[in-house]
Amino acid sequence: MRLNVRFAGSGGQGVILASVLLSKAYGLGENYNIAQTQSYGPEARGGACKAEVVISDKEIDYMKVNKADVFVALNQVGYDKYIDTVKDDAVVLINSTLVESDRPNVYRIQATQRAEDMGKPFVVNIIALGALTRLMPKVHYPAVEEEIKNNFNASIAAVNLDAYKMGYDIMDEDLKNLGYKTGFGESRQW
Amino acid sequence: MRLNVRFAGSGGQGVILASVLLSKAYGLGENYNIAQTQSYGPEARGGACKAEVVISDKEIDYMKVNKADVFVALNQVGYDKYIDTVKDDAVVLINSTLVESDRPNVYRIQATQRAEDMGKPFVVNIIALGALTRLMPKVHYPAVEEEIKNNFNASIAAVNLDAYKMGYDIMDEDLKNLGYKTGFGESRQW
Repeated sequence: MRLNVRFAGSGGQGVILASVLLSKAYGLGENYNIAQTQSYGPEARGGACKAEVVISDKEIDYMKVNKADVFVALNQVGYDKYIDTVKDDAVVLINSTLVESDRPNVYRIQATQRAEDMGKPFVVNIIALGALTRLMPKVHYPAVEEEIKNNFNASIAAVNLDAYKMGYDIMDEDLKNLGYKTGFGESRQW
Repeated sequence: MRLNVRFAGSGGQGVILASVLLSKAYGLGENYNIAQTQSYGPEARGGACKAEVVISDKEIDYMKVNKADVFVALNQVGYDKYIDTVKDDAVVLINSTLVESDRPNVYRIQATQRAEDMGKPFVVNIIALGALTRLMPKVHYPAVEEEIKNNFNASIAAVNLDAYKMGYDIMDEDLKNLGYKTGFGESRQW
Protein backbone atom coordinates (compact mmCIF):
# COMPACT_ATOMS: atom_id res chain seq x y z
CA MET A 1 0.00 0.00 0.00
CA ARG A 2 1.21 3.50 -0.84
CA LEU A 3 -0.86 6.64 -0.49
CA ASN A 4 0.38 9.98 -1.80
CA VAL A 5 -1.30 12.87 -0.01
CA ARG A 6 -0.92 16.53 -0.92
CA PHE A 7 -2.19 19.53 1.04
CA ALA A 8 -2.35 23.02 -0.45
CA GLY A 9 -3.39 26.32 1.05
CA SER A 10 -1.99 29.60 2.24
CA GLY A 11 0.63 29.55 4.98
CA GLY A 12 -1.67 30.97 7.63
CA GLN A 13 -4.19 28.19 7.12
CA GLY A 14 -2.01 25.63 8.87
CA VAL A 15 -1.45 23.28 5.99
CA ILE A 16 1.86 22.03 7.35
CA LEU A 17 0.49 21.32 10.81
CA ALA A 18 -2.40 19.34 9.33
CA SER A 19 0.03 17.25 7.33
CA VAL A 20 2.25 16.65 10.35
CA LEU A 21 -0.68 15.55 12.53
CA LEU A 22 -1.88 13.14 9.84
CA SER A 23 1.68 11.81 9.49
CA LYS A 24 2.06 11.17 13.18
CA ALA A 25 -1.33 9.48 13.37
CA TYR A 26 -0.40 7.03 10.63
CA GLY A 27 3.21 6.67 11.69
CA LEU A 28 3.03 6.52 15.47
CA GLY A 29 -0.60 5.54 15.95
CA GLU A 30 -1.08 3.04 13.13
CA ASN A 31 2.50 1.87 12.60
CA TYR A 32 2.89 2.78 8.93
CA ASN A 33 6.02 4.27 7.42
CA ILE A 34 5.67 7.96 6.66
CA ALA A 35 7.67 10.60 4.83
CA GLN A 36 6.37 14.12 5.31
CA THR A 37 7.79 16.89 3.17
CA GLN A 38 7.32 20.59 2.84
CA SER A 39 8.90 23.11 0.56
CA TYR A 40 10.13 26.55 1.48
CA GLY A 41 11.34 29.04 -1.01
CA PRO A 42 10.12 31.58 -3.49
CA GLU A 43 6.86 29.71 -4.13
CA ALA A 44 5.95 29.65 -0.43
CA ARG A 45 5.53 33.42 -0.55
CA GLY A 46 3.05 33.25 -3.43
CA GLY A 47 0.12 32.13 -1.30
CA ALA A 48 0.27 28.48 -2.35
CA CYS A 49 1.87 26.52 0.44
CA LYS A 50 2.24 22.79 -0.11
CA ALA A 51 2.85 19.87 2.21
CA GLU A 52 3.04 16.23 1.24
CA VAL A 53 2.70 12.94 3.05
CA VAL A 54 3.63 9.51 1.74
CA ILE A 55 2.08 6.64 3.70
CA SER A 56 3.32 3.14 3.09
CA ASP A 57 3.46 -0.29 4.63
CA LYS A 58 6.98 -0.65 3.22
CA GLU A 59 10.16 1.40 3.50
CA ILE A 60 9.79 4.63 1.55
CA ASP A 61 12.58 5.19 -0.89
CA TYR A 62 10.87 7.67 -3.20
CA MET A 63 9.50 10.51 -1.08
CA LYS A 64 8.08 12.69 -3.76
CA VAL A 65 4.38 12.93 -4.50
CA ASN A 66 3.91 13.15 -8.24
CA LYS A 67 0.28 12.19 -8.87
CA ALA A 68 -1.72 12.47 -5.66
CA ASP A 69 -4.10 9.80 -4.37
CA VAL A 70 -5.49 12.35 -1.94
CA PHE A 71 -5.58 16.10 -2.45
CA VAL A 72 -6.77 18.62 0.14
CA ALA A 73 -7.15 22.24 -0.98
CA LEU A 74 -7.82 24.94 1.57
CA ASN A 75 -7.68 27.87 -0.86
CA GLN A 76 -8.35 28.50 -4.53
CA VAL A 77 -4.76 29.35 -5.47
CA GLY A 78 -3.59 26.01 -4.11
CA TYR A 79 -6.45 24.14 -5.77
CA ASP A 80 -5.77 25.67 -9.15
CA LYS A 81 -2.06 25.04 -8.88
CA TYR A 82 -2.24 21.33 -8.07
CA ILE A 83 -5.59 19.97 -9.29
CA ASP A 84 -4.04 18.76 -12.54
CA THR A 85 -1.61 16.51 -10.69
CA VAL A 86 -4.10 14.20 -8.98
CA LYS A 87 -4.98 10.69 -10.09
CA ASP A 88 -8.30 10.10 -11.83
CA ASP A 89 -9.72 8.19 -8.88
CA ALA A 90 -8.17 10.48 -6.25
CA VAL A 91 -10.00 11.67 -3.19
CA VAL A 92 -10.25 15.45 -3.51
CA LEU A 93 -11.35 17.43 -0.46
CA ILE A 94 -11.92 21.16 -0.73
CA ASN A 95 -12.57 23.92 1.76
CA SER A 96 -15.81 24.84 0.03
CA THR A 97 -16.06 28.25 1.71
CA LEU A 98 -13.11 29.40 -0.39
CA VAL A 99 -12.65 26.89 -3.20
CA GLU A 100 -14.80 26.36 -6.27
CA SER A 101 -14.44 23.20 -8.29
CA ASP A 102 -16.25 21.78 -11.32
CA ARG A 103 -14.63 18.38 -10.91
CA PRO A 104 -17.10 15.52 -10.35
CA ASN A 105 -16.81 13.57 -7.08
CA VAL A 106 -15.28 16.25 -4.92
CA TYR A 107 -15.74 16.12 -1.16
CA ARG A 108 -16.60 19.42 0.44
CA ILE A 109 -16.20 20.83 3.93
CA GLN A 110 -17.18 24.39 4.82
CA ALA A 111 -14.04 24.68 6.94
CA THR A 112 -13.56 28.45 6.96
CA GLN A 113 -17.26 29.10 7.54
CA ARG A 114 -17.48 26.59 10.37
CA ALA A 115 -14.34 27.99 12.02
CA GLU A 116 -15.80 31.51 11.83
CA ASP A 117 -19.07 30.23 13.32
CA MET A 118 -17.07 28.83 16.25
CA GLY A 119 -15.36 32.21 16.68
CA LYS A 120 -12.02 30.37 16.22
CA PRO A 121 -10.78 31.18 12.71
CA PHE A 122 -7.50 29.35 13.33
CA VAL A 123 -9.12 25.89 13.35
CA VAL A 124 -9.76 25.77 9.59
CA ASN A 125 -7.00 23.20 9.16
CA ILE A 126 -8.25 21.02 12.01
CA ILE A 127 -11.84 20.98 10.76
CA ALA A 128 -10.49 19.90 7.36
CA LEU A 129 -8.30 17.30 9.07
CA GLY A 130 -11.38 15.86 10.78
CA ALA A 131 -13.18 15.53 7.46
CA LEU A 132 -10.06 14.07 5.87
CA THR A 133 -9.62 11.49 8.62
CA ARG A 134 -13.10 10.16 7.86
CA LEU A 135 -12.21 9.89 4.16
CA MET A 136 -8.91 8.07 4.63
CA PRO A 137 -8.40 4.32 4.87
CA LYS A 138 -6.36 2.64 7.59
CA VAL A 139 -6.37 5.46 10.12
CA HIS A 140 -8.72 5.56 13.07
CA TYR A 141 -10.36 8.52 14.77
CA PRO A 142 -8.43 8.15 18.07
CA ALA A 143 -5.01 8.09 16.37
CA VAL A 144 -5.43 11.63 15.04
CA GLU A 145 -7.18 12.75 18.22
CA GLU A 146 -4.14 11.62 20.22
CA GLU A 147 -1.75 13.69 18.09
CA ILE A 148 -3.95 16.78 18.43
CA LYS A 149 -3.85 16.33 22.22
CA ASN A 150 -0.08 15.98 22.14
CA ASN A 151 0.46 19.00 19.92
CA PHE A 152 -1.38 21.70 21.82
CA ASN A 153 -1.41 23.07 25.34
CA ALA A 154 -4.49 21.86 27.18
CA SER A 155 -6.21 25.24 26.78
CA ILE A 156 -6.18 25.19 22.99
CA ALA A 157 -6.31 21.43 22.63
CA ALA A 158 -9.96 21.51 23.67
CA VAL A 159 -11.11 23.82 20.88
CA ASN A 160 -9.04 21.91 18.34
CA LEU A 161 -10.56 18.63 19.48
CA ASP A 162 -14.02 20.14 19.02
CA ALA A 163 -13.06 21.31 15.54
CA TYR A 164 -11.67 17.89 14.68
CA LYS A 165 -14.81 16.13 15.83
CA MET A 166 -17.03 18.54 13.92
CA GLY A 167 -15.17 17.99 10.68
CA TYR A 168 -15.20 14.23 11.16
CA ASP A 169 -18.90 14.07 11.99
CA ILE A 170 -19.95 16.20 9.03
CA MET A 171 -18.04 13.97 6.63
CA ASP A 172 -19.31 10.86 8.38
CA GLU A 173 -22.88 11.93 7.57
CA ASP A 174 -21.96 12.57 3.94
CA LEU A 175 -20.29 9.19 3.54
CA LYS A 176 -23.19 7.39 5.18
CA ASN A 177 -25.52 8.92 2.65
CA LEU A 178 -23.25 7.63 -0.12
CA GLY A 179 -22.85 4.21 1.47
CA TYR A 180 -19.04 4.48 1.40
CA LYS A 181 -16.61 3.24 4.02
CA THR A 182 -13.85 5.62 2.91
CA GLY A 183 -13.59 8.51 0.48
CA PHE A 184 -12.35 6.14 -2.19
CA GLY A 185 -15.84 4.69 -2.45
CA GLU A 186 -15.87 1.27 -4.04
CA SER A 187 -13.01 2.02 -6.41
CA ARG A 188 -10.26 0.52 -4.26
CA GLN A 189 -9.87 -2.30 -1.83
CA TRP A 190 -7.91 -1.72 1.37
CA MET B 1 24.56 24.30 -5.58
CA ARG B 2 22.92 21.50 -3.66
CA LEU B 3 23.47 20.83 0.03
CA ASN B 4 22.08 17.71 1.69
CA VAL B 5 21.66 18.22 5.43
CA ARG B 6 20.68 15.51 7.91
CA PHE B 7 19.80 15.97 11.58
CA ALA B 8 19.60 13.05 13.99
CA GLY B 9 18.68 12.93 17.64
CA SER B 10 15.94 11.81 19.96
CA GLY B 11 12.47 13.22 19.47
CA GLY B 12 12.55 15.36 22.59
CA GLN B 13 15.72 17.13 21.47
CA GLY B 14 13.88 19.17 18.87
CA VAL B 15 15.58 17.86 15.78
CA ILE B 16 12.61 18.57 13.55
CA LEU B 17 12.22 22.14 14.76
CA ALA B 18 15.91 22.84 14.14
CA SER B 19 15.57 21.54 10.60
CA VAL B 20 12.46 23.60 9.98
CA LEU B 21 14.10 26.81 11.23
CA LEU B 22 17.15 26.21 9.04
CA SER B 23 14.85 25.53 6.09
CA LYS B 24 12.91 28.72 6.54
CA ALA B 25 16.08 30.75 6.92
CA TYR B 26 17.45 29.48 3.63
CA GLY B 27 14.09 29.42 1.86
CA LEU B 28 12.40 32.61 3.01
CA GLY B 29 15.41 34.60 4.18
CA GLU B 30 17.97 33.72 1.52
CA ASN B 31 15.70 32.79 -1.36
CA TYR B 32 16.91 29.25 -1.99
CA ASN B 33 14.68 26.32 -2.83
CA ILE B 34 14.20 23.96 0.08
CA ALA B 35 12.67 20.54 0.63
CA GLN B 36 12.40 19.56 4.27
CA THR B 37 11.46 15.99 5.11
CA GLN B 38 10.89 13.99 8.24
CA SER B 39 9.97 10.41 8.75
CA TYR B 40 7.48 9.02 11.21
CA GLY B 41 6.97 5.39 11.84
CA PRO B 42 8.40 2.47 13.73
CA GLU B 43 11.94 3.89 13.64
CA ALA B 44 10.86 7.20 15.21
CA ARG B 45 10.10 5.33 18.43
CA GLY B 46 13.57 3.82 18.66
CA GLY B 47 15.23 7.01 19.83
CA ALA B 48 16.74 7.98 16.50
CA CYS B 49 14.66 10.74 15.01
CA LYS B 50 15.77 12.05 11.62
CA ALA B 51 15.03 15.23 9.70
CA GLU B 52 16.48 16.20 6.35
CA VAL B 53 16.87 19.44 4.45
CA VAL B 54 17.83 19.82 0.80
CA ILE B 55 19.00 23.32 -0.12
CA SER B 56 19.38 24.21 -3.76
CA ASP B 57 19.54 27.15 -6.11
CA LYS B 58 17.48 25.12 -8.60
CA GLU B 59 14.13 23.34 -8.45
CA ILE B 60 14.42 20.25 -6.28
CA ASP B 61 13.19 17.14 -7.98
CA TYR B 62 14.96 14.56 -5.86
CA MET B 63 14.16 15.25 -2.22
CA LYS B 64 15.97 12.42 -0.59
CA VAL B 65 19.27 12.83 1.22
CA ASN B 66 21.44 9.83 0.46
CA LYS B 67 24.98 10.92 1.29
CA ALA B 68 24.93 13.97 3.53
CA ASP B 69 27.05 17.09 2.98
CA VAL B 70 26.18 18.19 6.50
CA PHE B 71 25.34 15.91 9.41
CA VAL B 72 24.25 17.09 12.85
CA ALA B 73 24.00 14.47 15.59
CA LEU B 74 22.43 15.38 18.93
CA ASN B 75 22.62 11.91 20.45
CA GLN B 76 24.80 8.82 20.13
CA VAL B 77 22.09 6.55 18.73
CA GLY B 78 21.51 8.99 15.88
CA TYR B 79 25.22 9.44 15.28
CA ASP B 80 25.88 5.72 15.11
CA LYS B 81 22.93 5.14 12.83
CA TYR B 82 23.83 7.71 10.18
CA ILE B 83 27.55 8.43 10.38
CA ASP B 84 28.29 5.94 7.60
CA THR B 85 26.11 7.84 5.15
CA VAL B 86 27.98 11.14 5.08
CA LYS B 87 30.34 12.28 2.33
CA ASP B 88 34.08 12.18 2.97
CA ASP B 89 34.33 15.97 3.06
CA ALA B 90 31.08 16.45 4.97
CA VAL B 91 30.66 18.90 7.81
CA VAL B 92 29.86 16.80 10.88
CA LEU B 93 28.61 18.60 13.99
CA ILE B 94 28.07 16.67 17.20
CA ASN B 95 26.52 17.49 20.54
CA SER B 96 29.71 16.62 22.37
CA THR B 97 28.02 16.33 25.76
CA LEU B 98 26.34 13.16 24.56
CA VAL B 99 28.12 12.02 21.42
CA GLU B 100 31.55 10.47 21.09
CA SER B 101 33.25 10.29 17.71
CA ASP B 102 36.63 9.13 16.53
CA ARG B 103 36.19 10.67 13.10
CA PRO B 104 38.78 13.32 12.22
CA ASN B 105 37.54 16.84 11.52
CA VAL B 106 34.41 16.78 13.59
CA TYR B 107 32.93 20.03 14.91
CA ARG B 108 31.82 19.92 18.51
CA ILE B 109 29.34 21.91 20.54
CA GLN B 110 28.57 21.14 24.20
CA ALA B 111 24.89 21.75 23.52
CA THR B 112 23.33 19.72 26.32
CA GLN B 113 25.85 20.98 28.90
CA ARG B 114 25.37 24.62 27.86
CA ALA B 115 21.59 24.27 27.94
CA GLU B 116 21.78 22.79 31.44
CA ASP B 117 24.07 25.63 32.51
CA MET B 118 21.44 28.10 31.31
CA GLY B 119 18.79 26.22 33.29
CA LYS B 120 16.90 25.75 30.02
CA PRO B 121 17.38 22.15 28.95
CA PHE B 122 14.97 22.56 26.02
CA VAL B 123 17.34 24.82 24.05
CA VAL B 124 19.77 22.04 23.09
CA ASN B 125 18.55 22.15 19.51
CA ILE B 126 18.80 25.93 19.25
CA ILE B 127 22.36 26.03 20.63
CA ALA B 128 23.28 23.43 18.03
CA LEU B 129 21.45 25.46 15.37
CA GLY B 130 23.54 28.51 16.29
CA ALA B 131 26.76 26.54 15.87
CA LEU B 132 25.48 25.02 12.64
CA THR B 133 24.55 28.41 11.19
CA ARG B 134 28.14 29.52 11.63
CA LEU B 135 29.35 26.41 9.79
CA MET B 136 27.00 26.70 6.82
CA PRO B 137 27.62 28.63 3.63
CA LYS B 138 25.14 31.05 2.09
CA VAL B 139 23.02 31.68 5.17
CA HIS B 140 23.43 34.72 7.36
CA TYR B 141 23.00 35.11 11.10
CA PRO B 142 19.92 37.38 10.88
CA ALA B 143 18.00 34.99 8.58
CA VAL B 144 17.91 32.26 11.23
CA GLU B 145 17.39 34.80 14.01
CA GLU B 146 14.29 36.05 12.21
CA GLU B 147 12.77 32.57 12.01
CA ILE B 148 13.43 31.95 15.71
CA LYS B 149 11.61 35.21 16.50
CA ASN B 150 8.69 34.17 14.30
CA ASN B 151 8.42 30.70 15.76
CA PHE B 152 8.14 31.44 19.45
CA ASN B 153 6.01 33.60 21.69
CA ALA B 154 7.96 36.63 22.84
CA SER B 155 8.51 35.14 26.30
CA ILE B 156 10.37 32.07 25.04
CA ALA B 157 11.81 33.73 21.97
CA ALA B 158 14.25 35.63 24.19
CA VAL B 159 15.85 32.56 25.75
CA ASN B 160 16.02 30.84 22.38
CA LEU B 161 17.70 33.89 20.84
CA ASP B 162 20.27 33.79 23.66
CA ALA B 163 20.87 30.10 23.03
CA TYR B 164 21.22 30.71 19.29
CA LYS B 165 23.74 33.49 19.80
CA MET B 166 25.74 31.40 22.26
CA GLY B 167 26.02 28.48 19.86
CA TYR B 168 26.97 30.78 17.01
CA ASP B 169 29.61 32.66 18.99
CA ILE B 170 31.28 29.51 20.30
CA MET B 171 31.61 28.11 16.79
CA ASP B 172 32.72 31.48 15.46
CA GLU B 173 35.69 31.37 17.86
CA ASP B 174 36.53 27.82 16.78
CA LEU B 175 36.44 28.68 13.09
CA LYS B 176 38.52 31.80 13.60
CA ASN B 177 41.18 29.67 15.21
CA LEU B 178 41.12 27.41 12.18
CA GLY B 179 41.05 30.30 9.71
CA TYR B 180 37.94 28.96 8.00
CA LYS B 181 35.05 30.97 6.58
CA THR B 182 32.63 28.04 6.79
CA GLY B 183 32.73 24.54 8.22
CA PHE B 184 33.78 23.21 4.84
CA GLY B 185 37.17 24.77 5.35
CA GLU B 186 39.03 25.24 2.09
CA SER B 187 37.66 22.09 0.53
CA ARG B 188 34.83 23.72 -1.39
CA GLN B 189 34.18 27.00 -3.09
CA TRP B 190 30.81 28.68 -2.59
